[in-house]
Order: sequence, then structure tokens, then C-alpha cells
Amino acid sequence: MRDVAIIGVGCTEFGELWDKSFREIFVEAGISAIEDANVQGGELDALYIGNMSGGRFIEQEHLGALIADYAGLAGLHIPSTRVEAACASGGLALRQGIIAVASGYHDIVVAGGAEKMTDVDVETTTDALAAAADREWEGVMGATFPGLYAMIAKLHMHKYGTTQEQLASVAVKNHHNGTMNPKAQFQNEISIETVLNSVMVADPLHVFDCSPITDGASAVVIAPADIAKKYTDTPVYVKASAQASGTLSLHDRPDITTIDATTAAAKRAYKMARVTPDDIGFAEVHDCFTIAEICAIEDLGFVKKGEGGKATVEGLTALGGKIPINPSGGLKACGHPVGATGVKQAVEITMQLRGDAGKRQIDGAAIGLTHNVGGSGGTAVVHIFGRER
Amino acid sequence: MRDVAIIGVGCTEFGELWDKSFREIFVEAGISAIEDANVQGGELDALYIGNMSGGRFIEQEHLGALIADYAGLAGLHIPSTRVEAACASGGLALRQGIIAVASGYHDIVVAGGAEKMTDVDVETTTDALAAAADREWEGVMGATFPGLYAMIAKLHMHKYGTTQEQLASVAVKNHHNGTMNPKAQFQNEISIETVLNSVMVADPLHVFDCSPITDGASAVVIAPADIAKKYTDTPVYVKASAQASGTLSLHDRPDITTIDATTAAAKRAYKMARVTPDDIGFAEVHDCFTIAEICAIEDLGFVKKGEGGKATVEGLTALGGKIPINPSGGLKACGHPVGATGVKQAVEITMQLRGDAGKRQIDGAAIGLTHNVGGSGGTAVVHIFGRER
Repeated sequence: MRDVAIIGVGCTEFGELWDKSFREIFVEAGISAIEDANVQGGELDALYIGNMSGGRFIEQEHLGALIADYAGLAGLHIPSTRVEAACASGGLALRQGIIAVASGYHDIVVAGGAEKMTDVDVETTTDALAAAADREWEGVMGATFPGLYAMIAKLHMHKYGTTQEQLASVAVKNHHNGTMNPKAQFQNEISIETVLNSVMVADPLHVFDCSPITDGASAVVIAPADIAKKYTDTPVYVKASAQASGTLSLHDRPDITTIDATTAAAKRAYKMARVTPDDIGFAEVHDCFTIAEICAIEDLGFVKKGEGGKATVEGLTALGGKIPINPSGGLKACGHPVGATGVKQAVEITMQLRGDAGKRQIDGAAIGLTHNVGGSGGTAVVHIFGRER
Repeated sequence: MRDVAIIGVGCTEFGELWDKSFREIFVEAGISAIEDANVQGGELDALYIGNMSGGRFIEQEHLGALIADYAGLAGLHIPSTRVEAACASGGLALRQGIIAVASGYHDIVVAGGAEKMTDVDVETTTDALAAAADREWEGVMGATFPGLYAMIAKLHMHKYGTTQEQLASVAVKNHHNGTMNPKAQFQNEISIETVLNSVMVADPLHVFDCSPITDGASAVVIAPADIAKKYTDTPVYVKASAQASGTLSLHDRPDITTIDATTAAAKRAYKMARVTPDDIGFAEVHDCFTIAEICAIEDLGFVKKGEGGKATVEGLTALGGKIPINPSGGLKACGHPVGATGVKQAVEITMQLRGDAGKRQIDGAAIGLTHNVGGSGGTAVVHIFGRER
């Protein structure tokens, strides 16, 4: 198995991009990554594309071929593969790209993700997103994602005394980080009161506890580690790529405050990278709702179970804290184009490890982690990246 | 890169399976393959799932997690990944499974495909299938797949003198093969007259020139070649796995009678397997329409360009011919559950190479090829399998 590195990254603005189509945003991110990597089009070997629901959002499947074609690569006949695992589609596209390079099947691979969510009405969007849950056991009963995560939050509050203020502090932190990210959908500060006074979506989650509906695309260029320095002085090495499944429905889990796909993927990733949670300098985690970030930092082993809310209020996960979480602004403030998110996380880690993250730069971090979740935890994917091989 | 083998296969009946759900048919095929491989559940490392449009057909995405869960594998937290490339989704799932084993990331992998197409009305099915073409350039203009392939057929007839009788002879042959396949959707003989007297769908394609709408699932178990004989006396070795993209729309191709993604993927596959078309004993090719089989046997190099129709009439591609094509009955008679087809082709090749194909057994063939196409040729994937490593 060959070692693998990221040699280039690209990302569109995240937001309501009504003047751009799916194919345009994907190719914008991809070309940006290819230019960043100093790769020529003819050197590209394969594309992997994360997308959750092109069928519902833009009435288009066969997205691999679409993108290869629109990017002008059809003449090269490069293999182009769409990968889907709901909101973890991006993370899985990244992982398939890594495996493809590790295998020797391909050398220079672009792994990207994109979602165009604002071309349909919000009811269609909500129903399309509900397809990430178990339609037969959850969707047809009327469960939508705010409702599912609200149940997780309720139990977390009951078991561990987590408060609405603690939940809100996740949103406040991530909005603060977003003010320093020029690509973020929301670049404004908010306060605890902003969250608590905002409209209730599903008790206890207010609208400011929820990540937004977003258009956006992101991409990375992956290469064998042995040739990475041919393209860049600052390759970022993939130290681990791990994926795990859990039950698709909440009702089948022993404890819904723990996403056991996350704990399983994290365990594999730490083993593969030969590190512990203490070695991780910072992370991009899947904060689709504020409660999700609290569960994530617990399930990834950064804090003890039940202490995620308290740790957030105390600043442990802030930019200057012991382990900064979601320096990009996370799904909450940077935005959550579902198929793009998992790749955008790797873009942020790469920028941070290179020292290219501008005002939100974390000093001295050498190892970063990404954590991308599909649905309410049916899929989790964890990657660990390092400045050193 | 490790060599890879197929150690088990499984397939549901193909047809209108109104009494079974998507999850049921996938798990039925998967368990059948796992039992065939003598693998224990705990040995499984990963799942790859080919599916074109769960979002439109069953309002369900996140199919990897769904299947891992319904198969009772959520507790093992195995990675489970859905792959999509329209009608080539199955072939790509197979290819990702092969790459995952070749890389060393995983050892025992199930690659399967499934589509449940009959739970929605036929207008929805037709529109969902049109999402395999370019929605902005073809779909919104009213183009559906019979129309696109009819244009290919018209030009092929114009350039090469191909006749409606020659097209029909593909259907007659594949229906004949289907009579010997107990899993096939259609197991009845038809005649040239049956085809020519059937209703016209898109001139010159009659309904009997078209593959049907089908429910079905298929699966294979993949393992490193070095340990394959631990599980079976008759492993089937993967000699090549190649994939290529072409333009998504017909109008961008230099010659629509050639699917250049097929020629590119075939060239790569022959090189990887170190064989020529003459070395291939038999093949399962993508006959979504009769014209598609004629183009395929030309583009794969089995006959000269323009001679596919004539060769079919002369029996070259019949079961007793020089190179039997679609012994399973192909998409035309066995049926075409779009996400399952690419995997079902590998199931057929495996059964033939093992000598397990019953009445349709091809004597003495040592090397078989599969050819799976997405849309009108935006994606093509070619695999070559052998009895010997």
C-alpha cells in the first residue's frame, strides 16, 4: 500500500449560489485545486465525486461523467466515479481517491464534492435530506433531521446535564471562526442570546443550532507521497483513512448520544496513524447541529463523554484553546453543501498545516483530523493528516 | 498492487419483484454470494453497492449504511460505500471493490448492485433514467434513452447498411439464451417477426429492441488472489479492471456509432490483462438496446466496425459461435435493474468459468469479459476474468 499526500486544494464560496450551476461550482473547485497543485490536465488519472442527491436536487445522476465532460476531460477518457453516503459523501469520495492512489491503480487523482441545494423549494430539500435516514422506519413517520438530532440533544441533556446555553456556545464559536473565513456562508458574530432567541425548529434545537442549506464545492488533488514534492513544497500527508457504518435508524442504537460509527472509525484511524487523541492538534468535525459537535468531540476522545458542552463553554475547542474545533466555521457557519463538506474539511486541514489559513491560522499544529458523518450516524469517516510523513 | 479474485457470487431473480423491497433483494443477493464463498460474516471487511437512483425510485439515499444495517453488519461497523454511474453503477461498484482489495485497505469485500425500479409509475422511471443523460442538453429537450439510442441506430444503418432484421437478431439470440437462465426476466423464445411486429418506441427501435424495466440485485465476494483457494476450489481471477469516461451528451461525439468510452476502457483492459480481443472466449456486454450490442461487439474489437449486425445474423455471437455474447440473456432478456447489471455480468462470467452455467454453459472458455455502460456512453467499464491467474 503506497503512502498518499494531498498536493493541492480548492473550494468555491459556500452560500446560496443562485447564479451558478452544479457543474460550474464543481469545476470551479476542481480547477482551483489542480492549479494549486501545479498539475497539468493530462497528468490527471481519475476523478472521485462526492454528492448526496443530484437526482432530487438537480434531476441529474451520472455525475462522474458529467463533471469529466464539463471539465474538458472527456477526451482523456479518465475514470470518474460518484460516491454517495448522504452527508458523508465528500469524506467517502476523498477516501476512495486515497485508496485508488494507495492501490497503484491511479497516480494523480482529484477527489471533490459538491451539492447544489437551493435550486428546489425547501420542502423538497428537507425531504431529499430525509433520504439520509431510514425512509421506512423514520422518514415515513415524519422524522426530519432536526427532529432526529433533537432527540439526541434531549437525551444528552437528560443524561449529562448539557444545557441549551452549552449547545449555543458551539454555534457562537463556529460563527466567530467563520468571520475569518472568506469562503464561509455566514461571516458574522452571534451571541448566546442570538441562538436562544431564534425560532425553535425541534425542541431543544433553535434555528441557530442548525447548519444551513448551502451550495458549494470543494476538491483536493491526491498523489503518491513519494512524488508529492515534485508538485509542492508543502504536501500534506494522509496518515489514516478510516470509515465505519452504524445502524441507519436511531432506534436501533444502544445509546443515541454516542455515534458508534464515529467511535469505530476513530479507533481505526488512530491505530492506522499510530497516534492518540492527545496527538491531534485540531479538527474539523461534523457539526450539522450544535449537539453533533458536542457528541463528536466526545466520541473522538478529545473530552470525556458528557463533558463536550462544558468544554466548549470553557474555550477548550476555541481557536486559541487546547484543541481548536472547526476553525473553518464548520458546517454551522462555513455552510453545509452536503456532498462537499467532507472534502472541504480536508481543504481546511491542508490550509492550516501549510500555514495558509490567514486570520484563523492555528499556530504550530502538526496533525489535524477530519470527521464526516452521514445521516444521524449510519456512516462516519475519519481522516488524519500530518505535515510530516 | 495485489492480484484479486472472485470467490463467490449471488443473484436474485430478475423481474417485477413487487413483493420484495430494495433492502430485501440486495441482502438476498449478498447473503447468497457470502454463502457461496464460504465466508463468515465476521470476515467481511467492506461493502460496495452500485445503485443508480435510490433517491428517485425509493426515496432513499445513504444506501451503503442501509444495506450494512439491514444485513446485520452494523455491529461490525464495516465500511459500506454506494457508487453511482447510471447504468454502469454496478460495474463501478465492482471496480471499487477490486481496487480496495488490490490496495491492501481491505481483504474480503462484497461488491453488489441493486435497483428497485417498479415501485414508481413508468413516467417517473423514464424521467429517473433520463437523469443518466445530460439533463440540461438532452433531458430538458425531451430526449429519453430509446430516443438517444434510436439516433445511434439510424446513423449505424445509414453508414453501414445495418438493417432492422439485424437489430432484431440480437434480441432473438438473447431471448434464446434467456430461456436457459432460471433467473432471467424473460425466458421465452421470440422471432424476428416478434420484434418487427412489436410496437415502435423510437424509430427504428421497437419495444423488443429495448431492455425492460427490472427489479433485481447481484453480488460477488472479492478476495486477494493469494488466499482465494482457502475459500473455493474455483476462484475466478480478475485480469483487468478498466474504466473510462466519454462525453455525457451524444452531440459532442465525433461519431455516435462508436462509444469512445468503450474503446478507451477496452484498450486499457486488454493492455492490463496482456490479451487481445482474440483471446476473449465470451463476453457479457451492455445491450440496453439491440443497437448497443452491435456497437459493443464492434467497439470491443470482436468484429470490424459496421459488421456487428451481419455477424449476429451469421451466428458468430450465438452460444455455439466463435465468441458467444450475453450467455445470460443480457440486459434484453435477463433484465436490466440498472445498478445491478454490471455485477450480474461478473456473476455470469464467474459461473461460466467455473462450469456452473447449466444449459447455457460455454465449453472450454478460459477468459471472459464484461462491458457495462452508463447512459449513452458517458461511462464505460470493462473487466476481464480468467480461470488461471
